[in-house]
Amino acid sequence: MNLADVARRAGVSPATASRALSGHPHVAEVTRARVWEAARALEYVASPEATGLARGTTGRVAVVVPHLARWWFGAALEGLGTVLREGGRDLLLYRLGDAGSRQAFFDELPTRRRADAVVLLGFGVDERERERLDRIGVGIVAAGTRVGSHPSVSIDDHAAGRQAMDHLLHLGHRRIGTIVAADPELDLAQPAGRSSAYRAALADAGITPDPALSVTVTWSPESGARAMGELLGLADPPTAVYAHSDEIALGAVRTLRRAGLRVPEDVSVVGIDDHPLAAMTDLSTVAQPAAEQGELAGRMALAGLAGEPVDPVVTVPTRLVIRGSSGPPQAAGRRWRRS
Amino acid sequence: MNLADVARRAGVSPATASRALSGHPHVAEVTRARVWEAARALEYVASPEATGLARGTTGRVAVVVPHLARWWFGAALEGLGTVLREGGRDLLLYRLGDAGSRQAFFDELPTRRRADAVVLLGFGVDERERERLDRIGVGIVAAGTRVGSHPSVSIDDHAAGRQAMDHLLHLGHRRIGTIVAADPELDLAQPAGRSSAYRAALADAGITPDPALSVTVTWSPESGARAMGELLGLADPPTAVYAHSDEIALGAVRTLRRAGLRVPEDVSVVGIDDHPLAAMTDLSTVAQPAAEQGELAGRMALAGLAGEPVDPVVTVPTRLVIRGSSGPPQAAGRRWRRS
Repeated sequence: MNLADVARRAGVSPATASRALSGHPHVAEVTRARVWEAARALEYVASPEATGLARGTTGRVAVVVPHLARWWFGAALEGLGTVLREGGRDLLLYRLGDAGSRQAFFDELPTRRRADAVVLLGFGVDERERERLDRIGVGIVAAGTRVGSHPSVSIDDHAAGRQAMDHLLHLGHRRIGTIVAADPELDLAQPAGRSSAYRAALADAGITPDPALSVTVTWSPESGARAMGELLGLADPPTAVYAHSDEIALGAVRTLRRAGLRVPEDVSVVGIDDHPLAAMTDLSTVAQPAAEQGELAGRMALAGLAGEPVDPVVTVPTRLVIRGSSGPPQAAGRRWRRS
Repeated sequence: MNLADVARRAGVSPATASRALSGHPHVAEVTRARVWEAARALEYVASPEATGLARGTTGRVAVVVPHLARWWFGAALEGLGTVLREGGRDLLLYRLGDAGSRQAFFDELPTRRRADAVVLLGFGVDERERERLDRIGVGIVAAGTRVGSHPSVSIDDHAAGRQAMDHLLHLGHRRIGTIVAADPELDLAQPAGRSSAYRAALADAGITPDPALSVTVTWSPESGARAMGELLGLADPPTAVYAHSDEIALGAVRTLRRAGLRVPEDVSVVGIDDHPLAAMTDLSTVAQPAAEQGELAGRMALAGLAGEPVDPVVTVPTRLVIRGSSGPPQAAGRRWRRS
């Protein structure tokens, strides 16, 4: 009893039968049903060979990440790895850290079937790359980002940004700076929702955004420190800063302390993430569950391989965590005192 | 022209020829030379099939880690991944986060040849596990730990610990606590050198170690915070603390601040790592190059697969980074003032 028998009974080619059994997304529902019907009738799934097939052909899931040393990626990968291991899959890790490795990966992708599914971890792809992914004919799941109409799990970046901004506005801040994170080397889309939240929150509060208060940097603590220096160099510096990540926010706090300014009395700082060290450094932030996003992406990938239905868009909640780095602006305005 | 021809000409079995060409460590040098001689004579390496063979049979390197969300592992994996990609190898990631997954991995290891080499990243193995690794007949490289006589790259934990301890002793501290890191769930050996350095430094300074000043915890910031609480609960608390990692040290700083104590005036704190956030939080530490250890381990694995000689033990240097969390003990002793 082999795949050819199943294909014959279902009236499809062996290739189509294989795709249907491996949970390939581009198989018509009616075809998939007919193939599974045939497989059941022939007790095909009972053989070890068939079990392998139903689970895909390589036993591996490819995971693509832009970074590994940053907290979110390590935590998400840890959750994802646990779920894949429990599902009996090996994890092939591709870190595309620069434009060259990124291009090489997508160029050679269609010629090499190395995995049964691809999980993009915080790695947004462009139109051409998405086409190439579609062409290799394996399921695609995204975590921490959205990729076309493929299943994805992430936070609502706009909602997270609003939690941070509304907190600062409620405290009475009117002159709020923002440190925007981008990934210029990889040309990855910045989390646009985190920026739109800044503008929307200001608009709702009747405040006209000042372009000088928005500084765009890479995701590192060091660049957060530099961005804060830039904001402090303004003729009219902000009384509060909303940063796109905790790592950036902690860099900003560092610069404030070096400048002899008090946090939050002189300047409040809020990040996004709830990095394990945010609690240790008393940073107010918007918490997101990173490991859980990895786990959910892993479950979605396994479900897709098993031919089960997969939610197209899963949004995990964020929550404001108020700690010691945010407080009301000083009554006297921005007349900073040295600490 | 296939492998059998090469084997015949070399007078060995095809399996031995394959092992010799894939840089397998357990092939006698004379046999390896004869097989390569035969392969060259038959221009065997010129075929794509042979290129694949010379590079091993799967094109993959397995990487085993106990953690991913902690800084060292993400950074080391990033360095390792870059080198393996440049070497044309795929990276199979196995995170063994608990005793169960660890046992399952080593139990099924000998029956599955999934990679041409194994890199153990901060993952020490016991005797039985090492035997199993040896039995699958692939090269083994360790980073951040030593595994029998296999090639390894790491820091000198004892020297790193001495840098931290000698710094505190030079500042005049005599009553020094230590927060020791261990991995009880995985039963991984703690970095013994970091503990022996504590005892040796005290002995050299003529100080008898007080067992109450040594607290053993897991590697997280939270457990560092709890350990510091324990030390503060002593009748005679320490004036300085040496922690096995920056993540633990930052937890300790958190508890000190919460207790209204000043760092370093009331208690000095020194860690090990130079975590990216150590600079941001002004933590004195002993810096170790994590990404470089991953890169070197990757180069050693690739060299082994290419049949090139590999240094058995590579030690990367550490260096003391003095920041604001360490200073001399107060002249008045431990009469702490609230900040």
